[in-house]
Amino acid sequence: MKSIAQRLRVRGRVRLRDWDPRDTPGASDPDRAAKRMRTNLERIDDLQYRLHAEGRQSLLIVLQGMDTSGKDGLIRHVMTAFNPQGCNIWPFKVPTAEEAAHDFLWRIHHAAPPAGEVAIFNRSHYEDVLVPYVHRLLGSGEIEERYRIINRFEAQLAERGTRVIKLFLHISRKEQRERLLARLDHPLKRWKFSEHDLSERASWRRYERAYEAALTRCSTDHAPWHIVPADHKWYRDFAVAAIVTDALAEMDPRVPKMRLPLARLKARLLR
Amino acid sequence: MKSIAQRLRVRGRVRLRDWDPRDTPGASDPDRAAKRMRTNLERIDDLQYRLHAEGRQSLLIVLQGMDTSGKDGLIRHVMTAFNPQGCNIWPFKVPTAEEAAHDFLWRIHHAAPPAGEVAIFNRSHYEDVLVPYVHRLLGSGEIEERYRIINRFEAQLAERGTRVIKLFLHISRKEQRERLLARLDHPLKRWKFSEHDLSERASWRRYERAYEAALTRCSTDHAPWHIVPADHKWYRDFAVAAIVTDALAEMDPRVPKMRLPLARLKARLLR
Repeated sequence: MKSIAQRLRVRGRVRLRDWDPRDTPGASDPDRAAKRMRTNLERIDDLQYRLHAEGRQSLLIVLQGMDTSGKDGLIRHVMTAFNPQGCNIWPFKVPTAEEAAHDFLWRIHHAAPPAGEVAIFNRSHYEDVLVPYVHRLLGSGEIEERYRIINRFEAQLAERGTRVIKLFLHISRKEQRERLLARLDHPLKRWKFSEHDLSERASWRRYERAYEAALTRCSTDHAPWHIVPADHKWYRDFAVAAIVTDALAEMDPRVPKMRLPLARLKARLLR
Repeated sequence: MKSIAQRLRVRGRVRLRDWDPRDTPGASDPDRAAKRMRTNLERIDDLQYRLHAEGRQSLLIVLQGMDTSGKDGLIRHVMTAFNPQGCNIWPFKVPTAEEAAHDFLWRIHHAAPPAGEVAIFNRSHYEDVLVPYVHRLLGSGEIEERYRIINRFEAQLAERGTRVIKLFLHISRKEQRERLLARLDHPLKRWKFSEHDLSERASWRRYERAYEAALTRCSTDHAPWHIVPADHKWYRDFAVAAIVTDALAEMDPRVPKMRLPLARLKARLLR
């Protein structure tokens, strides 16, 4: 049976209309999926402990998706399985003046996970190909060059022992409308709403094309993209937990065996 | 009735022998304490959301304590109540060459929480008065000067809207022995053991004196120290959750009220 990661992995040319945001491959029942997810969250906790103890490999999770696709919710519901000590969340916003004065990977590289640790990128260097594509800030040759730079960068990370998992949270335009309406209706959520949400929504089709290009060009063996159907929040959380668990299990981190002079150490403690 | 924070707060001159590490002030039954703690963890989640939405104040939690006093366990069991996005954990280890080339607050100041966020220091600038005291690396005048520098620094943070909570996890020397023995006996925990644990343990009395001096000199109204009895893990977790919840509640963060043109925005979404 194919794993969730295999089912959702991008291979070859992406056309988003071939990927149904309401699909739930590998899971039909929300309650059973929630149960399997809880098991996976416990396994993530254990595997991260081993990763930390081993101190050789690291894990990088890249989250991308349209506004309201659920990046924040996913962090709240799935990524909390990680011990926060040893797991850094990096929300990448519009670059600061200092960041913008460097090449686009400068701030990204700084945030790469050290050995034994996990990093989660909430948005990422992919914004630096998506936004220029949508708003026509760079020519297509320059954007092509950035795909190559990104692929080389991610290959370097992988060679040094970093597992790179890239997740595109795929929602429909209709679902986004529902979520923006809900945000407007909720007194505690309304403050998050900005007119910018609406102007970006107006560029929906161009964002789809920008994502199709980036997912097609940058899904590699060392850093594959996955398209996670995300109209159903329960499926989004379930699928991501499964992908992360499988990746960590494949990395097979091992707690170092210590040959300690146990008897002597205990004697020192007991005297 | 006095709050847990009031009971554990340092006022005046500290003598650690007056503070029993096995004490459980304000809680007698572990099960009832666990229940109250769960309620507090939910309140922390809600209050942090409001802190983030408000975007004006921030929270800094400083954790100190002897080896095995439970700083890591506390982070795992209590600090996971925070949404990891908006809560950074900073483990301060022996300074790197770059850090050591700066004044001792350089790396600390960098880690201070921005508006709307939470930072947790696992060890802190207090190592820079404790270690010199224990190992006689600085004269007493120089250490006195550092207490003053620390007090001024923390006052600055407080003036800018950062609530500073300092927690000394207080265990007995006997309890440390039990925990180090347990670490040696557990195949998955043994790797954490180092001879350094034993050499630091040999300086127990000097560490106590160093803590007594730092807690006495640096417990201020704007950044009070609390001595958390930590031989009982359930009490340690319960007490810290209570102190953090009360502090956040006192900060009273408020979600901004937005005056949005709701009807017009909805019309734009629906067309």
